[in-house]
Amino acid sequence: MIEAGLLLPGAHRAAALADDRAVARAILRVEDAWVTAQSRTGLVPAAAAEAAHAAVDRVPLDEASLTELAVASEGGGNPVIPLLAAYRRVVEEEHGRPLGAVHAGLTSQDVMDTTLALVVEDVRGTVLDGLDRTGDALAGLAVRHRDTVMVGRTLTQHALPVSFGLKAASWLAGVDDAADDVAARAHLPVSFGGAAGTLAATVARCTHPGDSGQRAWQRVRELLGHWAEELGLELPDGVWHTNRVPVLRAAGSLAETTAALSRMANDVLTMSRPEVGELREPAAEGRGVSSAMPQKQNPVLSVLLKRTGIAAPALLAQVVAGASAADDERPDGGWHAEWPALRELAVLTAAASSHAAELAEGLTVGEERMTRNLADAGTGVMAERLNTALAPVLGERDGRSAKQRIQAAVRAEPQDPDALAAALAAEVRTGEDVELPEGVAASELTGWIRGLLDPRGYLGAAPQLCERAAARHDERKRR
Amino acid sequence: MIEAGLLLPGAHRAAALADDRAVARAILRVEDAWVTAQSRTGLVPAAAAEAAHAAVDRVPLDEASLTELAVASEGGGNPVIPLLAAYRRVVEEEHGRPLGAVHAGLTSQDVMDTTLALVVEDVRGTVLDGLDRTGDALAGLAVRHRDTVMVGRTLTQHALPVSFGLKAASWLAGVDDAADDVAARAHLPVSFGGAAGTLAATVARCTHPGDSGQRAWQRVRELLGHWAEELGLELPDGVWHTNRVPVLRAAGSLAETTAALSRMANDVLTMSRPEVGELREPAAEGRGVSSAMPQKQNPVLSVLLKRTGIAAPALLAQVVAGASAADDERPDGGWHAEWPALRELAVLTAAASSHAAELAEGLTVGEERMTRNLADAGTGVMAERLNTALAPVLGERDGRSAKQRIQAAVRAEPQDPDALAAALAAEVRTGEDVELPEGVAASELTGWIRGLLDPRGYLGAAPQLCERAAARHDERKRR
Amino acid sequence: MIEAGLLLPGAHRAAALADDRAVARAILRVEDAWVTAQSRTGLVPAAAAEAAHAAVDRVPLDEASLTELAVASEGGGNPVIPLLAAYRRVVEEEHGRPLGAVHAGLTSQDVMDTTLALVVEDVRGTVLDGLDRTGDALAGLAVRHRDTVMVGRTLTQHALPVSFGLKAASWLAGVDDAADDVAARAHLPVSFGGAAGTLAATVARCTHPGDSGQRAWQRVRELLGHWAEELGLELPDGVWHTNRVPVLRAAGSLAETTAALSRMANDVLTMSRPEVGELREPAAEGRGVSSAMPQKQNPVLSVLLKRTGIAAPALLAQVVAGASAADDERPDGGWHAEWPALRELAVLTAAASSHAAELAEGLTVGEERMTRNLADAGTGVMAERLNTALAPVLGERDGRSAKQRIQAAVRAEPQDPDALAAALAAEVRTGEDVELPEGVAASELTGWIRGLLDPRGYLGAAPQLCERAAARHDERKRR
Amino acid sequence: MIEAGLLLPGAHRAAALADDRAVARAILRVEDAWVTAQSRTGLVPAAAAEAAHAAVDRVPLDEASLTELAVASEGGGNPVIPLLAAYRRVVEEEHGRPLGAVHAGLTSQDVMDTTLALVVEDVRGTVLDGLDRTGDALAGLAVRHRDTVMVGRTLTQHALPVSFGLKAASWLAGVDDAADDVAARAHLPVSFGGAAGTLAATVARCTHPGDSGQRAWQRVRELLGHWAEELGLELPDGVWHTNRVPVLRAAGSLAETTAALSRMANDVLTMSRPEVGELREPAAEGRGVSSAMPQKQNPVLSVLLKRTGIAAPALLAQVVAGASAADDERPDGGWHAEWPALRELAVLTAAASSHAAELAEGLTVGEERMTRNLADAGTGVMAERLNTALAPVLGERDGRSAKQRIQAAVRAEPQDPDALAAALAAEVRTGEDVELPEGVAASELTGWIRGLLDPRGYLGAAPQLCERAAARHDERKRR
Repeated sequence: MIEAGLLLPGAHRAAALADDRAVARAILRVEDAWVTAQSRTGLVPAAAAEAAHAAVDRVPLDEASLTELAVASEGGGNPVIPLLAAYRRVVEEEHGRPLGAVHAGLTSQDVMDTTLALVVEDVRGTVLDGLDRTGDALAGLAVRHRDTVMVGRTLTQHALPVSFGLKAASWLAGVDDAADDVAARAHLPVSFGGAAGTLAATVARCTHPGDSGQRAWQRVRELLGHWAEELGLELPDGVWHTNRVPVLRAAGSLAETTAALSRMANDVLTMSRPEVGELREPAAEGRGVSSAMPQKQNPVLSVLLKRTGIAAPALLAQVVAGASAADDERPDGGWHAEWPALRELAVLTAAASSHAAELAEGLTVGEERMTRNLADAGTGVMAERLNTALAPVLGERDGRSAKQRIQAAVRAEPQDPDALAAALAAEVRTGEDVELPEGVAASELTGWIRGLLDPRGYLGAAPQLCERAAARHDERKRR
Repeated sequence: MIEAGLLLPGAHRAAALADDRAVARAILRVEDAWVTAQSRTGLVPAAAAEAAHAAVDRVPLDEASLTELAVASEGGGNPVIPLLAAYRRVVEEEHGRPLGAVHAGLTSQDVMDTTLALVVEDVRGTVLDGLDRTGDALAGLAVRHRDTVMVGRTLTQHALPVSFGLKAASWLAGVDDAADDVAARAHLPVSFGGAAGTLAATVARCTHPGDSGQRAWQRVRELLGHWAEELGLELPDGVWHTNRVPVLRAAGSLAETTAALSRMANDVLTMSRPEVGELREPAAEGRGVSSAMPQKQNPVLSVLLKRTGIAAPALLAQVVAGASAADDERPDGGWHAEWPALRELAVLTAAASSHAAELAEGLTVGEERMTRNLADAGTGVMAERLNTALAPVLGERDGRSAKQRIQAAVRAEPQDPDALAAALAAEVRTGEDVELPEGVAASELTGWIRGLLDPRGYLGAAPQLCERAAARHDERKRR
Repeated sequence: MIEAGLLLPGAHRAAALADDRAVARAILRVEDAWVTAQSRTGLVPAAAAEAAHAAVDRVPLDEASLTELAVASEGGGNPVIPLLAAYRRVVEEEHGRPLGAVHAGLTSQDVMDTTLALVVEDVRGTVLDGLDRTGDALAGLAVRHRDTVMVGRTLTQHALPVSFGLKAASWLAGVDDAADDVAARAHLPVSFGGAAGTLAATVARCTHPGDSGQRAWQRVRELLGHWAEELGLELPDGVWHTNRVPVLRAAGSLAETTAALSRMANDVLTMSRPEVGELREPAAEGRGVSSAMPQKQNPVLSVLLKRTGIAAPALLAQVVAGASAADDERPDGGWHAEWPALRELAVLTAAASSHAAELAEGLTVGEERMTRNLADAGTGVMAERLNTALAPVLGERDGRSAKQRIQAAVRAEPQDPDALAAALAAEVRTGEDVELPEGVAASELTGWIRGLLDPRGYLGAAPQLCERAAARHDERKRR
Repeated sequence: MIEAGLLLPGAHRAAALADDRAVARAILRVEDAWVTAQSRTGLVPAAAAEAAHAAVDRVPLDEASLTELAVASEGGGNPVIPLLAAYRRVVEEEHGRPLGAVHAGLTSQDVMDTTLALVVEDVRGTVLDGLDRTGDALAGLAVRHRDTVMVGRTLTQHALPVSFGLKAASWLAGVDDAADDVAARAHLPVSFGGAAGTLAATVARCTHPGDSGQRAWQRVRELLGHWAEELGLELPDGVWHTNRVPVLRAAGSLAETTAALSRMANDVLTMSRPEVGELREPAAEGRGVSSAMPQKQNPVLSVLLKRTGIAAPALLAQVVAGASAADDERPDGGWHAEWPALRELAVLTAAASSHAAELAEGLTVGEERMTRNLADAGTGVMAERLNTALAPVLGERDGRSAKQRIQAAVRAEPQDPDALAAALAAEVRTGEDVELPEGVAASELTGWIRGLLDPRGYLGAAPQLCERAAARHDERKRR
């Protein structure tokens, strides 16, 4: 509902793209381009189009005017009608008389949907900029830390060793997926159907004596093509007054973005808890301050990203609910429910991509703490590896499987890998019929087992996954 | 930063209750009252409190200042911190030196939550005013039209006769339920916990030498009581930094309201379709206009109400999602996600109650059209009554139940009640062992059946339900 | 444990694709294919793989077993663990001894996500079948009724003439868009990361002495490629344990489908209201019956489609909320929240596509009623055309614009086009300096204006839009 | 959608309350009670009522029958119609002939809504049991640990000392609030309106010759009163076919519960991370196991609770969206959308209350680790206290405020309270015009400051808040 917003901290980073002033400007731009397009096909004299164009900047959009427009928007249920009236007045001044070509053949939904298209277009650029910056930074982290071991956590508990690079690569994959989606789908085409989706008035105006319906239609398409070109938008196949797919796809790609970014934030929040201490948000003047506690340094970027991740599903649901309620030739409330949610989702996503970029670019990685936490995690995180490597060597004995005996040994020596290696080696030696692993002499057994307990040797495909994610990012950037 | 909202037509009716300026003012009011409360318990000299009070109106809240505040809100993740800084500067000017009592012992969440409490308080009044007006109008309609027959519709199809009064009574019941709920639950108490929910700083300040913990606690409660009193809010039992029940209840009562009102709008939209034509929205200058079609008169109030009904479930979900994500002593994003959704829900609900009042007060009821539509619905809508009344008389014959034969007769005469009555009377007469209903002579049979086909005689408890709903409304208003 | 669902009428059409038994079977299929893939790369003897394969059908999945599994799923938080235990027991019987290769290197999330991939794959086929049938029927309607005039409605009120074919074409566009999206995006690839997303155990098993990391990784990819091939799924670039993009995209495409279909249902519900009477749902034995009223014929297919359209936004929100809450190397609740919502959305969408197909294929189009309703709508629906055509001819007079005078004339003759034509012709003649439209003689004026009032001549591009939508559908089908 | 549910781990704890069999049984119970009520008012002979009653247990509800019912539910859009047919057949067998009183005057919505009322009633009991057990355990923890110091965390970072009891008390407050709400609001009354909300058929049957409308209405109310009594439900004031307030309130109270419980789970998840290690979930056979890692012990109860907290907002939104779409005398899809969401929300909430009880009752509190973590948090967490106590003593010097100098001292000695006390005492002594706090001699200064650094002395009102929360719980239990 509200853009710069005391209740939407951080949204100021993108609010100007979609605030009421931006919406009003876009409405005027749409109306102006429509006259221009008409002049390009000869429906309107060039001078009239120039008057219409000159009028755009003279429509007052100060705070008081916008408030008036907001009030007047209730009458017809949308802001096009009152703003159009204001625009017509100024055009008349510029033109010396009323200019019938203004809005001729358009319905307010054509203008409103095309306005949203322009707004989404601006937002898309900002979102993609932020995602590119975020991705660049994450690709750097993924490569730099491909071998930086840390403890992997699943369902909150210590699992296996991973590398911090792998975590960054996983975040990066989400960011690149989102960027692909936003680039492809956060586009609305121009909207054109006229009063009831038949384009009847425009067809009538474009029908020259003797024209077949097909010929007139070509003229209409040509006119619409000029309009779309003026606005930098695409021309859709049909009328989307009630087929809200463009809006659904745009909103979906934005929510995919917030999901990718809030997930990264969730991790940063956990990892920058003092007890974990593996990451630290970039500091900035006035950032992370508390009104009560001087020593606090709150991870505000991540907090705001998590906030956005909690809000976005509901905003998406509102858009989809609106689209699903569409009816008749133009909807009676469903359409209106889409706008504020789409706008807020757009602004929050654009702001989030900026937050994420700043976060990723400035993240402090505590390698030492990662090493320490992994050591504190103890030998348990190597149990899977021991099982894989030793089960064939240990076999079953006294009714206890290799797995059970390994587990018992790990529990007995949760923190001391040397003692655990010795104990397991003894377990092997006391067994019968032992077949040592290929290339391991009996005398080397303890050392070999001790080697298995080195987490750096059990990163699996983490380095390859880091490289792939970074390479994919580079490739996307080159496209 | 514009909050009336080009993309939220109609919201201007309530936006000023909750826009950024209202929020900022409420923050200042909360801080001011806190100093006053301290002076009432002797913690601060009266002159200092006066300086703090005088400062409130001098903090600049023009558009540029609000924009600056919005930008600065990112730093700490909420607007309290920058606005507090501005307030402290002005207090220092008024007081001649810094006043440590400002915000002493408070955390930004205390202020923010209490601010929302003030905003919700204002909104509640407006919502209730609108619901009262709506209810008054609907009670009038319920009573006036308790016997105005119309065709009842279920799953969109004609069902039985009902009265328009019953429909109004049903809307009214929803409105009164919502008003009860809003009155009882759209209240947030003051929020007080200090930096980590222990009120430690305030306890320290309120502990006199020799005080027991209990005694100090009493002093704290007394201080908080003053604060709550100054703000016209209640004092809660505990700290609700992470127990977001007050917010959930307020939001729930608002969504109950929008559900009640959007349902009424759904009906008005259907009934004011030209093909139904039973209701018409009140006209107003500039209301319901179309940008393309001069003849259009759109039911904009209902469209906006339906819009709100589509938006509210998602807004509620966002609030609940935020509350469910609360953690630690103060949340890391869940809390922040509540604000914009709660505000938008509050504003939309308040605007909706105003829309509904205008709609209910000005609704044109087309009794004639109701009569005609009911007649067009034909004899089918009386089939249930025929079944009930004639089944015992007709009995089974030739393997066909009374119900089957009645159904066949109705299908044969869907539009002509006289012919249907004659046919059914013949069906009775041709039967054997007929026992006529008590008090009906054989010669009166056709007339008696024809009487059964009068929809005015089959309104069931509609009149009683109308009276009850109206009486309940009156009773609620008297409370 | 019953999944067809008394509370989800109509879901039985697709429930078997995704009910608990289908999920359990898919889990077993995933585990089986994993052993097979290992045997294809030589990690497991063929006989062992055969034993594992033979075991699949012997795991009991009757109601009692499924209930036990459901109960046991709580322990580890997912159903893989208990079902795996049951599977291992049967494999041991088949194999004569425990088979370590079962689940070796997999984590339960690998299996669960891949299971969802199989389920979504099945559902996708069913959704697309339904959409194809729906689209075929709608394309037929669009072409057949490209010139069937009816009154267009916007914001519930009469607007301009449209054709029923255009409405069908608009529904069709939504259906084809949804089908494109489902075909492209309702795919989950296999999920593979091992215990913490590094594939460490599998890398270890695939590392031959002397292998470089890159070489081992190639072996792993080969193994995974076999697995994906066995399952008919794709191999993803990376690990998606916490990057939930595949799930988001699948869910988004399903919700796009329900939006397209519920919108069609909204229109059918309105148009099959008795007062409108332009459409009728196909009848079927037991369809649309009422428990109380014999004469009722409820549009149940549309009711269920609308139901689905109301449910889907929330189901999508739940999936997105789950994905946005992902954290660590595997999530602690977010992941679990995705499953039931994704399943219900999938089942409802597949059922909806079947409902829609039946609806579109059997829809009765009341052309006569459409004609009558359009006539009843009166001359107002031609006002836009009159404005366009007559404004230049009429000009301003006595301070009243052409538009104002046309509007007055229309209001004076809302139902009689002949009288309106005469009145407007008189208005032209009484003017001065009249320049008649090209090719219209003064004596022909009334007839020319009367011709303008023929709605069949004001369908704009409706015929072209019908053809385009049908052609696009054909093209999609040919792909 | 699915109850016991492989995809809803843990739901088996409550699924039987609301699964399809429970729903079917409740439908039969509703129909049976209706005949009984009629017999109590003399409308039906007692023997007929006995036959109807005897029939209930003979309607087959095995898996196959339920599946058939589910399939047949599509026809009328709800399960009442086919189950009623089955019931009527059995009643006819018991009664020797058809019994017209079965379902007489009811519509399927009356039965369906009343069925949901019975289901919600059962669920409410289970939810309250779980909340009572949870509350009892938490009250114990709150009292036992009222002085167990731990570090408080806000926005994830260390803030001030708190007590673990206070945290338990805060969870408890949410639990008691939720229990109050569920007790008061998770009630649906019987639903009665007949085919179109007028109760016409029943009024007709209850109208004796000569009865006034009011008298007949009294008879109807008497009959309904018997029915409600038989079912243990309340009688509402009016008809709620389209006024869905009872459903909204029930769903709201359930979501309030899941919010309270998921918040507790969020904290347990954080505090049982190995790096924090302050809490541990109760162990149970098979609980928390991993399919890959033998050493893992996952906090599954909390994971499932968090899962529920993520799902509930969307489920609530679906219910509210359904209610908001109600229209006509009975809704065309909105009503149908409520059922599955209400059921799933009910089951998940009941299961969650059981999970929470087990969690709270078996929680292991690591007091030692809390002490250690607080010590590790260092002197920073006492900074607020130092400010409050020392600011008046230190005053401003050399342009640096007391706060700035304290902050510098804390930063210089983040871990050593003795050194910090000494440094601050020196800071005081080197100042001029020092006025020591009352009762503190200059020689005691260091010791006094050192005392301020003891977190046990800075718990504020935590003990009082613990006692209040426990007392409130006791009071609620006694009611």
